[in-house]
Amino acid sequence: MFDHIFKPKSIALIGASRSPGSLGHDVLENIKKLGFKGKIYPVNLKANQILGLTCYPSVLNIKGNVDLAIIMVPANFVANVLEECGKKKIKGVIIISAGFKETGEAGAAREEQVKAIIKKYKIDLIGPNCLGIINPHINLNASFADGMPEKGKVGLISQSGAMAVAIMDWAYQSKIGFSKIISIGNKAGLSEIDLMKYLAQDPETKVIMMYLESITDGQAFMKLSDKITNTKPIIVLKSGTSSAGVAAISSHTGSLAGSDRVIKTAFKQCGVIRAKTVEDLFDFAKAFSLAPLPRGNRVAIITNAGGPGIMATDALSDTHLVLAKFTNETNAYLHRHLPKSASVHNPVDIIGDALADRYQLALEAVLSDKNVDAVITILTPQTMTQEDETAYLASKLAKKSRKPIIAVFMGGEDVNSGRLILQKFGVPNFDYCERAVRSLDKMYFAKKIKTDIILAKYQGKNKKLNFSTRKCQIRTVEAEKILQEYDLPVLKSTLIPDKAHFKKINYWPVALKIASRDIIHKKAAGAVVVNNHTPFQAEKSFDLIVKNVKKSNPQGEIEGVLAQPMAKGKGMEVVVGMKRDVNFGPTIMFGLGGSFVEVFKDVSFRLAPLTKKDALKQMAEIKSFRVIEEYDIDLLAEIIVKISHLSLDYPQIRELDLNPIIIQKKGGHIIDVRMLI
Amino acid sequence: MFDHIFKPKSIALIGASRSPGSLGHDVLENIKKLGFKGKIYPVNLKANQILGLTCYPSVLNIKGNVDLAIIMVPANFVANVLEECGKKKIKGVIIISAGFKETGEAGAAREEQVKAIIKKYKIDLIGPNCLGIINPHINLNASFADGMPEKGKVGLISQSGAMAVAIMDWAYQSKIGFSKIISIGNKAGLSEIDLMKYLAQDPETKVIMMYLESITDGQAFMKLSDKITNTKPIIVLKSGTSSAGVAAISSHTGSLAGSDRVIKTAFKQCGVIRAKTVEDLFDFAKAFSLAPLPRGNRVAIITNAGGPGIMATDALSDTHLVLAKFTNETNAYLHRHLPKSASVHNPVDIIGDALADRYQLALEAVLSDKNVDAVITILTPQTMTQEDETAYLASKLAKKSRKPIIAVFMGGEDVNSGRLILQKFGVPNFDYCERAVRSLDKMYFAKKIKTDIILAKYQGKNKKLNFSTRKCQIRTVEAEKILQEYDLPVLKSTLIPDKAHFKKINYWPVALKIASRDIIHKKAAGAVVVNNHTPFQAEKSFDLIVKNVKKSNPQGEIEGVLAQPMAKGKGMEVVVGMKRDVNFGPTIMFGLGGSFVEVFKDVSFRLAPLTKKDALKQMAEIKSFRVIEEYDIDLLAEIIVKISHLSLDYPQIRELDLNPIIIQKKGGHIIDVRMLI
Repeated sequence: MFDHIFKPKSIALIGASRSPGSLGHDVLENIKKLGFKGKIYPVNLKANQILGLTCYPSVLNIKGNVDLAIIMVPANFVANVLEECGKKKIKGVIIISAGFKETGEAGAAREEQVKAIIKKYKIDLIGPNCLGIINPHINLNASFADGMPEKGKVGLISQSGAMAVAIMDWAYQSKIGFSKIISIGNKAGLSEIDLMKYLAQDPETKVIMMYLESITDGQAFMKLSDKITNTKPIIVLKSGTSSAGVAAISSHTGSLAGSDRVIKTAFKQCGVIRAKTVEDLFDFAKAFSLAPLPRGNRVAIITNAGGPGIMATDALSDTHLVLAKFTNETNAYLHRHLPKSASVHNPVDIIGDALADRYQLALEAVLSDKNVDAVITILTPQTMTQEDETAYLASKLAKKSRKPIIAVFMGGEDVNSGRLILQKFGVPNFDYCERAVRSLDKMYFAKKIKTDIILAKYQGKNKKLNFSTRKCQIRTVEAEKILQEYDLPVLKSTLIPDKAHFKKINYWPVALKIASRDIIHKKAAGAVVVNNHTPFQAEKSFDLIVKNVKKSNPQGEIEGVLAQPMAKGKGMEVVVGMKRDVNFGPTIMFGLGGSFVEVFKDVSFRLAPLTKKDALKQMAEIKSFRVIEEYDIDLLAEIIVKISHLSLDYPQIRELDLNPIIIQKKGGHIIDVRMLI
Repeated sequence: MFDHIFKPKSIALIGASRSPGSLGHDVLENIKKLGFKGKIYPVNLKANQILGLTCYPSVLNIKGNVDLAIIMVPANFVANVLEECGKKKIKGVIIISAGFKETGEAGAAREEQVKAIIKKYKIDLIGPNCLGIINPHINLNASFADGMPEKGKVGLISQSGAMAVAIMDWAYQSKIGFSKIISIGNKAGLSEIDLMKYLAQDPETKVIMMYLESITDGQAFMKLSDKITNTKPIIVLKSGTSSAGVAAISSHTGSLAGSDRVIKTAFKQCGVIRAKTVEDLFDFAKAFSLAPLPRGNRVAIITNAGGPGIMATDALSDTHLVLAKFTNETNAYLHRHLPKSASVHNPVDIIGDALADRYQLALEAVLSDKNVDAVITILTPQTMTQEDETAYLASKLAKKSRKPIIAVFMGGEDVNSGRLILQKFGVPNFDYCERAVRSLDKMYFAKKIKTDIILAKYQGKNKKLNFSTRKCQIRTVEAEKILQEYDLPVLKSTLIPDKAHFKKINYWPVALKIASRDIIHKKAAGAVVVNNHTPFQAEKSFDLIVKNVKKSNPQGEIEGVLAQPMAKGKGMEVVVGMKRDVNFGPTIMFGLGGSFVEVFKDVSFRLAPLTKKDALKQMAEIKSFRVIEEYDIDLLAEIIVKISHLSLDYPQIRELDLNPIIIQKKGGHIIDVRMLI
């Protein structure tokens, strides 16, 4: 796929330089000295030789075939040399040079030029403004980062060069190996999506690890991730989630669906594991790349000291994991073979004088227990403890077992050699119980989520709104028409432009509310009066509503009032809403209505489209679900699904609130709708 | 105070041994070889010399004065040698030997013997069943742990020997130094309270760090901590918080006030910083021992790469901290002096080619900004980065500044020398942004909490319940009497043993509920009927209630029904409750009533006693506070304070629920009360 970039047989370095410390020198040195076996062609107008290699004035002067060109010349020369790469039929190019989109208008123009050239010559491009790439498996470091990371199974895609360097540096200390390291820079050519596809089919990559600052095409990201995570875990650290988008007018849903919520929802829906910190990124990469996923959430803990066993148990309480309950056979066996003062119940305390053989006995017993899905084995360095022997035997058992064994060797120097053994033989090891538990929880979750949520399919119809859209809010009557297109159970309103029109109403009692695109929160503005039984009452309410609206918004539009039949029968108030995320598309919200929504923010989210099954799961996620469970859940699920389709069909609609929906034991009504464009 | 233990001039080692690997040998070797300058007397019946030191058959044979005896003989010999220590007038004793309370009945008896002897001779005892103690400042390692930790300002008290060893081992790697390390074992003599007092007055200890599995006297712990934390921070990792106590009958409050909640509440009320993990323990110890506390929560971030700046900003969103808004002068100054592509707004990105001088410029600017309370300075190792120089200058500025500077040097090997410099000159440094933010948050919180909550004083009156207390629940009528003692606004009930008694009621309408000590949740049992307007109605309700109760609890006690006047006027339902924690005493709960309490668990806690100001703060902590704010908050505060006193006065009452209390704009009523003993 992109093997000309990641497994090139020949590389041209355009802008290679003789001055140590310069980019053009350091990248060349990295490629030459760290063991790359292919051909290397430095390209430099003025030099004849650099680091003992013959230099060429242009790639066009190179006789042989060139798979990959690395461009390091100043930004304003890039277009020229890139054009030459095209002519030379070089299929892979990395532009390390900065000075493009990230620097303002002139740079952005240069980037457009680059895009045109790669399109013309069908070049696969990484960058510009990036660190380069590394493939430890062929000893290729085509970047200006120092050294060669260990060979391993983690494929890293980083949107920040600085973060890639820091991650490599940390990884070196914690002995995490890489299959590929890719700094994607400005993504003028290949995006994270393209490179995920590459890593997905790369046999050397077992886990995909990403640091991203933006996800350009959220829907494509989700579709692809959903597919990849069936076979390879994807772990993503997404930064910049705290800066909530600022919108001029914000609906109820708008204020609750922050960007952090959207990322959380999106990742969950497509099976991506979210790392909240760099530590998470490492921990999860280690756990996922070394151990099998647990089949369930029942954890056995083995420890040679009480305290850490308690701490591991404490840590379970914040997760989806539970303490396994051993079979009677296991308990009896442990009771027979462990010392009297040992604790044979989970967590199993094999006490301070435990040698490796006692660990073996306990590990074998709990691994073969059918009530155990995963094992955390804790070691504290005590006088007699056999750190290395215990590490060896844990490695041996881990190799044979289908259940994950996670080790926690606590302490520093004393246990380091044990840790190295675990590392070498592929047992994930953590310094602290909490991090072992957290990683195991993610592994369980990764397994579970793929069976829980299946990405729904729906092709948006790209409908256009067929009326004037000057104002931000769509007229209620127009919004109701759109809902009716989808057979949504809206209580239809009639516009009453003046009081004389009440005569035409043939349903009483009526609810009245203002007809105005300038009032978002009608109740708060005193613009709703329910239970008008007679035209006389209605006329008085009309005046009151108009008066209140004029007071709260003197310049506001007033078309009249809207009359609506009163909903019959008792019910609960719920809310369904939508906010369009700029990257991920429509985010659908569900929650309980009434005054408590605002207080408790008890809402749940899904990205569109949704199936009915998804909608039912989404509803079940709110804390107060048991309060509404007895109502017409089925109808609500249908409403959610239809709103997800409507949102995909009408890309102009930015936010939407159905608030309240009165849901009854059988049936229900959408009482009010707000649509913002 | 306990200087004879921690700064002894002479030590006797009872049970000293010649066999390497044995306890008696290793402890002696630690004391002799690691540089202790005082006199050392090995005591061993059989040997003449050990490690070149003259041996004594008993402490009584030692001519000179002995400050400290360390006992390492088997448990059944301990009483004898301890008695000899008493006769020799040795004031300080450490019993390392195990085989006491922790091993069952025989051991517990031995421990009682030990207690009797130390009482008789007024010996200050640490242990038994402990690791020993270490004072790096006089090179004394009186324990069987290897090596000598660095000298430093952290005083460690650990209830687990294994954890103490692991903590020391970790601390060595992260260069944290200690003033004292104390393994307290079974606490037969000195408890954590005594040792906290010692560390509080120890000039070498700046921060007290504790690992605790149990806190025996919670109230004493709180009182002492409240005092100490005015001058020295206390950081505690308390394990075993997930195992909620199982009670036979559990009230509403009982089920919500788990032990984790109690610890959280207690620590907050007395200014103790809670570490949830060992990593926290180190991070907080580092931050608190090195940097001054920030005066406010406004943080400036300086970084040489965009990504980490964003990640630090993201991390702020989970804390009490906010991004500082610079003055115009600061922005203008940075704009003038930083490169064009730098970001002069917070977070300040001084970009990848920043040398130490650019860090200096930015640091000085933000440190002198009056809108900044603390600075996080981030460094990623890039090609030109001056790690060491930047570390030096940050140290220099930190020394001059009253505002804390926290450094984040990201990566591994590349930045290690910079980290060592920061360490040496006392700038807290973290590998990851999130941990820097979390530690700074705790520092701010530590400062704030001491001004927010003042430990209330109230001496319980130790009242006895003056009626039969055979059953777990107190009769409603009796419980109401107790409430009346405190002038609590209870709507008093009248017992109606049979239907004929309704004639005596002269207030109508009445609410009726079952009178039975076997029904905890009356409403759920169908044992409440409100709004009975006539004796006829009431008689029908009487039958219904009795029928329902017999159905739900056929063996249950039925004394009759209770008649109660109906509360007049509209109001909100709230709940006040109490659960007695076995260590910390009465835990007072406040929350909103009605069906949503159970769903949202929107409740807040305080430990008794409370002042009215505390009660008002407690109420303001619930999410739905704004819903009840317009009601008689003042009366509620009084109720909370009185319940806190009542709970201290009546130690027999285990749990208590006032549920519901109907609170009105002015005034309110306690409708129902449950007291469990």
